[in-house]
Amino acid sequence: MISVQPPSGTRDFLADELRKRRQVIRVIQEVYESFGFEPLETPAFENLSTLLGKYGEEGDQLLFRILRRGEKLQEVLAAGAGAQNELSDLALRYDLTVPLARVMARYRSQLPKFYKRYQIQPVWRADRPAKGRFREFMQCDLDVCGSSSLVVEAEVLAAACTVLDRLQFSTYSISLNHREVLRGLIEAAGAPAELEATALVAVDKLDKLGTAGVRAELVQRGLAVPAAERLLRLLEQVQNLPDNEQRLARLGEELHRPAAVAGLEALRTILVLSRDTTAGPRLMINPSLARGLSYYTGAIFEVIVPGAAGSLGGGGRYDGLVGMFAGQVIPACGFSLGLERVVLVLDEQGRFDAAAGAIQVMLMNFAETQAEVLALANRLRGLGVSCDVYPEAAGLKQQFNYAAGRNVQYVGFYGEREQESNQLRLKRQTDGAELSLALNDLENEWKKLTIPQWLQ
Amino acid sequence: MISVQPPSGTRDFLADELRKRRQVIRVIQEVYESFGFEPLETPAFENLSTLLGKYGEEGDQLLFRILRRGEKLQEVLAAGAGAQNELSDLALRYDLTVPLARVMARYRSQLPKFYKRYQIQPVWRADRPAKGRFREFMQCDLDVCGSSSLVVEAEVLAAACTVLDRLQFSTYSISLNHREVLRGLIEAAGAPAELEATALVAVDKLDKLGTAGVRAELVQRGLAVPAAERLLRLLEQVQNLPDNEQRLARLGEELHRPAAVAGLEALRTILVLSRDTTAGPRLMINPSLARGLSYYTGAIFEVIVPGAAGSLGGGGRYDGLVGMFAGQVIPACGFSLGLERVVLVLDEQGRFDAAAGAIQVMLMNFAETQAEVLALANRLRGLGVSCDVYPEAAGLKQQFNYAAGRNVQYVGFYGEREQESNQLRLKRQTDGAELSLALNDLENEWKKLTIPQWLQ
Repeated sequence: MISVQPPSGTRDFLADELRKRRQVIRVIQEVYESFGFEPLETPAFENLSTLLGKYGEEGDQLLFRILRRGEKLQEVLAAGAGAQNELSDLALRYDLTVPLARVMARYRSQLPKFYKRYQIQPVWRADRPAKGRFREFMQCDLDVCGSSSLVVEAEVLAAACTVLDRLQFSTYSISLNHREVLRGLIEAAGAPAELEATALVAVDKLDKLGTAGVRAELVQRGLAVPAAERLLRLLEQVQNLPDNEQRLARLGEELHRPAAVAGLEALRTILVLSRDTTAGPRLMINPSLARGLSYYTGAIFEVIVPGAAGSLGGGGRYDGLVGMFAGQVIPACGFSLGLERVVLVLDEQGRFDAAAGAIQVMLMNFAETQAEVLALANRLRGLGVSCDVYPEAAGLKQQFNYAAGRNVQYVGFYGEREQESNQLRLKRQTDGAELSLALNDLENEWKKLTIPQWLQ
Repeated sequence: MISVQPPSGTRDFLADELRKRRQVIRVIQEVYESFGFEPLETPAFENLSTLLGKYGEEGDQLLFRILRRGEKLQEVLAAGAGAQNELSDLALRYDLTVPLARVMARYRSQLPKFYKRYQIQPVWRADRPAKGRFREFMQCDLDVCGSSSLVVEAEVLAAACTVLDRLQFSTYSISLNHREVLRGLIEAAGAPAELEATALVAVDKLDKLGTAGVRAELVQRGLAVPAAERLLRLLEQVQNLPDNEQRLARLGEELHRPAAVAGLEALRTILVLSRDTTAGPRLMINPSLARGLSYYTGAIFEVIVPGAAGSLGGGGRYDGLVGMFAGQVIPACGFSLGLERVVLVLDEQGRFDAAAGAIQVMLMNFAETQAEVLALANRLRGLGVSCDVYPEAAGLKQQFNYAAGRNVQYVGFYGEREQESNQLRLKRQTDGAELSLALNDLENEWKKLTIPQWLQ
């Protein structure tokens, strides 16, 4: 007996769900293109050697490896049970950053000096499936490669906020921090330099663990109790200040290391550059934001939606990564939108209109007028009206029942009687209201139909 | 040294190429939705057991199998070099029909009685890569499941033709045949019933091998020379007749077996039903069309574009397939558009407008007005103008050079001077023409910009 479930951790997307995802993706595409970002798509799998070692040991174990084929496989098997890295030569894409780095190396000469690209494609991770955690899920990345200018941060933030605005998120904000500012604070609290990295990881959990929890974790990670307390007090003090100006000023009092001072200045510049963009009113300096990933080198940011579990996306500057295959340092700054979560939140808020998937007209099937009904369907579709035709000359009741189950707005009758009067008779499914369209002026008459809107 | 090529047989899609593909896909989606077809997406991989044995032995070898992971893999390896079917538990999707069959079984109760779906997703085959043959390529399928009515064939054909019309293919036609008609002809030529299947395969190669080649192959496949010659003469006679009416009449003279007569009647009905749809003027009865695949059970059809190598798509009725996991016969009829080839042909005909990927305005970067330039970019984007900002306050020449390489329509200046006069000064890249937009009325002024159209 073959299971008809999709494989563990993956999903089938039937029409309703898929339409929601596509609507969101379309908004993202339109916004990102309006910012001058170019689309990119890369293959579902990469050579195994491209991916191995890029995500740490844990990441290597989460790769979906593709079995070698044909003679090569036979050779490996004949040589004795091979390790998994010998049995496979390809692996499914784990993220969109390593493919970007490969593209940067492969096409550098034909890409613009500043390569602004977005990429919306699935990635695969052999994680243990759990609620909200999938083995196949969409990533939605935006990156600018090739410039260290803070205009890049401002543009990336504005693009992210424009997407969220267009999706009609109203109450979100963007937490903004800088790697060097956070590092400087840890130093200012009296923690030794070599503990900064591990302290970052603990600070990143403030949302989850609260102050007491993070203090315990900081101490466990080797910080002296006074340093841990001073750090948390500092963070709290800054976060209690009402606006960015005061937060920056307070941070300025604590930071002295040149890199930290420069980081603070970078944040100040990003705020100035963003002032009259969509990002302007959303940015909040948040010195405790760490975003786990060790590869960030400058500004870091994260979307916060009150009431939503977790973040809807985040990003920052990571100057050491996209040049890895090109053999040079290529500065880069990017933003990754959590598409799965965005769709979930919009859906929970009831922001997708079920009517949008509707078929505007379903024409009934009468044995005597089948060809004429198909011709009429052809005319309606040519005018932009979505139109279905019941395929069989069944009883009226059966056809009505089908329409009721299919999100049809109008049921249309074009039998012999209507043919004689040259009219299409329609019945609106919501309220049973009847109307007729004169077929000799269908080009204008169809406008009587209500048109569904998708995203409310 | 890591190769930065995409894996063998796969492609990276940079912006220009990707925009073309997306444009075509969007037309297909819009048309199919206007016909009441619902979108479907399924996971990239399926359980291996779902796919094995569905594509014949050759197909099984072309599956990209995914290596088992963790303990399961260790177990298999410990038990001695496993066969490839033990080493893997999943495989990449090979087509979109088997996933459809799984979806039909899994969701039957929540799907409409007539499930009309389209699916546009990549599939993967471990074929030897060659010119125009890829290991990762898009399939674009349209199917109606659940009805044996010939209205279904008419709707599928109309949907296919509407897509081709909307893509502005002008000279294409649709070859139309019926499995039982072809079978009847082979019988009428005097070939024994058990040779019909093998004879189909030979007849299918008429385009490629010509009459002499197919005669030789028919004989090689076991037909007597007189039967082979009579069959080919019959096919030629029918094809030399100028219209469908005469072809149907001539076929009627030859066919006597009830199934063949019914098949002929089905073709006649499809022509009648299609008369005033987009398919009407395109359909040509072609008794030699066989479409290789043995799973077709009724009408079969194929898109023919004069001058284009191979077909742009095809389909037919295949009543035995989509019910395979549901444990019942579910009648079905579908059409598969060759997206890769469609994009290729449109591109060869120069039908994509390079200007469509253009950025309408690139704003120059002046150190003194960076924040103001970003604010202006924000306003322009809000009005629907695509707008890039040069990220660094570099020299004018450098910024101009960049714009020239990036398909920018207008370069925009908003320095201190323009700020004073509250104007955006623009230079059109094609001819150097200059214009200014008054910023206090930008809502109307931006309409002075020319807007690129994508598909010509």
